[in-house]
Amino acid sequence: MDLINERLAALRARMREAGTDVYVVTSGDFHCSEYVSACFRAVCFISGFTGSAGTAVITPDKALLWTDGRYFIQAERELAGSEFELMRMAVKGVPTVTEYLADCLRDGQTLGFDGRIVSLKLAEEWSEKLKEQGKSVSFKADRDLLGEIWTERPAQSFHDAFLLPEKYTGESAADKLSRLREKLQEKKADAFVLSAMDDIAWLFNLRGDDVPNNPVVFAFAFVDAGQAVLYLRTDVINAEVRAALEKQGVTLRPYEEFWKLTLSDKTVCLLDPAKTSFLVGTGIPNRIAAVNPTTLMKCVKNPTEQAALRESHRRDGIAMVKWLYWLKHHPAPETLSEIDVSDFLEKCRREAGAFELSFGTIAAMGPNAAMMHYSAKPEQYSMIEKKGFLLVDSGGQYPDGTTDITRTVTMGPLSDKQKRHYTAVLKSMMRLAGAKFLKGCTCYFLDILARGPVWDLGIDYRCGTGHGVGFCLNVHEGPNGFRWAKPASVDGLVELEPGMVTTDEPGVYLEGEYGIRIENELLCVEKEENEYGQFLGFEHLTLCPIDLEPVIIEALSPEERRDLNAYHAMVFERLCGGLSEEEAAWLKEITKPV
Amino acid sequence: MDLINERLAALRARMREAGTDVYVVTSGDFHCSEYVSACFRAVCFISGFTGSAGTAVITPDKALLWTDGRYFIQAERELAGSEFELMRMAVKGVPTVTEYLADCLRDGQTLGFDGRIVSLKLAEEWSEKLKEQGKSVSFKADRDLLGEIWTERPAQSFHDAFLLPEKYTGESAADKLSRLREKLQEKKADAFVLSAMDDIAWLFNLRGDDVPNNPVVFAFAFVDAGQAVLYLRTDVINAEVRAALEKQGVTLRPYEEFWKLTLSDKTVCLLDPAKTSFLVGTGIPNRIAAVNPTTLMKCVKNPTEQAALRESHRRDGIAMVKWLYWLKHHPAPETLSEIDVSDFLEKCRREAGAFELSFGTIAAMGPNAAMMHYSAKPEQYSMIEKKGFLLVDSGGQYPDGTTDITRTVTMGPLSDKQKRHYTAVLKSMMRLAGAKFLKGCTCYFLDILARGPVWDLGIDYRCGTGHGVGFCLNVHEGPNGFRWAKPASVDGLVELEPGMVTTDEPGVYLEGEYGIRIENELLCVEKEENEYGQFLGFEHLTLCPIDLEPVIIEALSPEERRDLNAYHAMVFERLCGGLSEEEAAWLKEITKPV
Repeated sequence: MDLINERLAALRARMREAGTDVYVVTSGDFHCSEYVSACFRAVCFISGFTGSAGTAVITPDKALLWTDGRYFIQAERELAGSEFELMRMAVKGVPTVTEYLADCLRDGQTLGFDGRIVSLKLAEEWSEKLKEQGKSVSFKADRDLLGEIWTERPAQSFHDAFLLPEKYTGESAADKLSRLREKLQEKKADAFVLSAMDDIAWLFNLRGDDVPNNPVVFAFAFVDAGQAVLYLRTDVINAEVRAALEKQGVTLRPYEEFWKLTLSDKTVCLLDPAKTSFLVGTGIPNRIAAVNPTTLMKCVKNPTEQAALRESHRRDGIAMVKWLYWLKHHPAPETLSEIDVSDFLEKCRREAGAFELSFGTIAAMGPNAAMMHYSAKPEQYSMIEKKGFLLVDSGGQYPDGTTDITRTVTMGPLSDKQKRHYTAVLKSMMRLAGAKFLKGCTCYFLDILARGPVWDLGIDYRCGTGHGVGFCLNVHEGPNGFRWAKPASVDGLVELEPGMVTTDEPGVYLEGEYGIRIENELLCVEKEENEYGQFLGFEHLTLCPIDLEPVIIEALSPEERRDLNAYHAMVFERLCGGLSEEEAAWLKEITKPV
Repeated sequence: MDLINERLAALRARMREAGTDVYVVTSGDFHCSEYVSACFRAVCFISGFTGSAGTAVITPDKALLWTDGRYFIQAERELAGSEFELMRMAVKGVPTVTEYLADCLRDGQTLGFDGRIVSLKLAEEWSEKLKEQGKSVSFKADRDLLGEIWTERPAQSFHDAFLLPEKYTGESAADKLSRLREKLQEKKADAFVLSAMDDIAWLFNLRGDDVPNNPVVFAFAFVDAGQAVLYLRTDVINAEVRAALEKQGVTLRPYEEFWKLTLSDKTVCLLDPAKTSFLVGTGIPNRIAAVNPTTLMKCVKNPTEQAALRESHRRDGIAMVKWLYWLKHHPAPETLSEIDVSDFLEKCRREAGAFELSFGTIAAMGPNAAMMHYSAKPEQYSMIEKKGFLLVDSGGQYPDGTTDITRTVTMGPLSDKQKRHYTAVLKSMMRLAGAKFLKGCTCYFLDILARGPVWDLGIDYRCGTGHGVGFCLNVHEGPNGFRWAKPASVDGLVELEPGMVTTDEPGVYLEGEYGIRIENELLCVEKEENEYGQFLGFEHLTLCPIDLEPVIIEALSPEERRDLNAYHAMVFERLCGGLSEEEAAWLKEITKPV
């Protein structure tokens, strides 16, 4: 940990030299991405914390790292021995980053951060809170102090991009642009600036490989009534792609030129402060703040996408069953490591047509699974054991969809507590999946269905119950997602709409003991419409048997039992055609009604 | 219905004479009450609709009445034959009153209403919407046109008031005032104007009889750092009450003097726009809008109140069981009318110490129960039948609490559908009551637990799942209440706190067929606190057996069955001491575990 402390010393020297009293390093890149490529892993560089979400605050005498419940155990280990103090987000008594900054900064001081990376929304939040406390603090956002000390920082690397065919997307870029322009008119905006790479990929039906596991392209976009400008490294597309984009009415400009975009104060420009950097946002004089309309359009999958998703999930399910069969029939599973099982699963998935994984596979044996986002590394992993649970959370990127699935697999004897906890998690997952509700219901409103059976145990999983999933895109996308935390505004109450895809992944995580999670992707679908309104419900997109060995059958309600049996019958019916005779026979056996 | 059309003609004549284009009549009184005394039943006078919540809009050629789902069936019947058109609130395609006004009023026109009755919030909503549409409409709020034509309007009548002793309230008026002043300081308010009668009753530990079933006193209050002025008819209190109030630091002033209250624009005055009339509100130049702090204090019952509630609910439960025993053992129930069963129940309740009912008893046989707020009248009632369901929703006002309970009683053979629906309603009630949740959860978040089993049938009860209940006060009080409609702002997301009392009353209502509702009052209580936070749950305050005859036992989940048996065991244990030997033996029998 000397390395981290050395880096802190170097950063503090720069801070003194730049007249910066406090410096903040956030996760993210120029596009406010959740997952980033290597050159943007600044939080990891300065703190050693490798999770996807963290914020480091460095003062002359303190170094603090905030992260959320998914990463508490991991962050504790990774920060141990360094000067960094862990700040557990959403835990009672722990201030937020904003509260901490407002508290520690003194009137007249200077707050430094990389304005290309911190979102406009976050910076505005800091600024409001400081104002509220009557403190005048200047922001120094035009200098990347961390970059200056990160001598071996990798370069931003750009990869080839390709067009996703309309047989998968179901809508041309031109049509999407025309719908987008209608939305802009509704919002009385003349123009729209878009930094979010997944929205750009969706809007232009373009995919790439610029962030690991996320098939996005480093790009910005500017759209008004007359033009749709796509800023990207022109060497990443070939002549065919270029011609096809231009045919859709798209103007291409070099990536770096975006930084020079200037708008007059007569142009009312819509932008999403949470998805636009401070530097880009403050450079636009006349702006309307709103969630990116592309985000709201993208999250509702059209019928073509829905059909494609059913097909990609079928192949993904076959991969999962082949892998499960291999694991359950392995003569000596104790000779396998977590990495071996991940690798075999990746192999199955690639055979099913995945061109990439949708995130680094989490294969966590025993207590490792208590870390929700555990990742086995060549230098540190566990062997599979013939007892307890193996938790595997994984997914693939297919041209016809993105998958995300978790199964917790019994590897040997289980304690009664493990069985009770597994049963509760199964009930949680099935209850939410089985919900029927009137249109107008929000994701927030349904969360208790999943959380209830775990809360009944006096336990909480410290994360959302589920997140939106992209289509051949990022495995995490908004605005839908099941959460219980009271949102800051009613905009956070997102109504479920037919076509939305959201994961359903409750869990139980006991530090030092084990972790249990069962995750299916759910497609919101229409049920009957009657005098009460339009009823909605969910269809399981994920097709994969759920291990029944740990289930206490008597603890299931009649509805849970009915839904579980119906799900298993569907899994068998949809998958058996892609399996060998032995695999199919085994699947038949483990999906028998209970 | 000629009478209604005559009244409309008279009102329109006044409108023409006053230069008013559209006139609105809302339910409510000078105190923005939900339930009102006879002289304020203006909506009923003009439209014939007798429900508690309605808004009439009269234009030169249209007469419209808005009401909510509880009253659709009733309103349809009551408006039939008159010019009035029913506007079903929250039904797809039906505009709100505000939307309708904004649409029908033309630029330059005049909107009339009684500014002493319409809330500031509602009038502001109209005004904003009109502005949004670019229409300039003047408000004429200082003339009660409806009052002018209502020649036989009863006078506002004032009744004796009394002090509720501290052994029930648990806190003196002086202590409440001092806590209130702290809240005002937090909000940076110099003063507070309070119109809501239930808040006034709570704040001053004063009760009366000025609104049927609501033990409140016509009064206003003004509180600042130096004084607490209570405006009430001085002849309603005796010398003893007067002296006791003055000892608590209260200044008494005549009721009518409140209308002359003037504040300088230097006095920052807090008021609740939803609970203050347009005339009072706009008369205060410098105001902060917020929910009445008294409302937020009142809804959390203190330990003394909680203990008193347990005791009053015990006696109320004994009254219910005595009544049920009588009904179930009656040699010829078919000779009884709905009014007879109500009367006998009232007798039982008064013997249990109720000084008043908390609302007019709903005793609804068969299809009558499909009207959620049905009320049998001497001129129109049904006889009890030896088949189907009798729904009885009732409650008492006790010095030590207010009760509200619904039971649906099997009177004879039931169809399978009736059994399925009854079982779903029981599941709904028990699921919500059995919830365990982390502090920070909102009422809104939990509603699906009750609504789910009814939605699963493709049915909705068109109302909230439950409402807050006062302490020897109004049977409906805010801010807590279980709802599913997305609130207009996050203020509508009310966090549950230990000490809150909320009803849990899901139902199934099929027009022309039957109605089913099971209602218990729930007290929010603390459960374990651990590393995940403070868990909360509910305690059943209501103690009364639930008819098990219609229950399809196999349809209950293990948890529902466990909770039902535990509830019934508690009911027997707590009530048996107050029953005759025969009644106790019968109660033992019907509360046996299933």
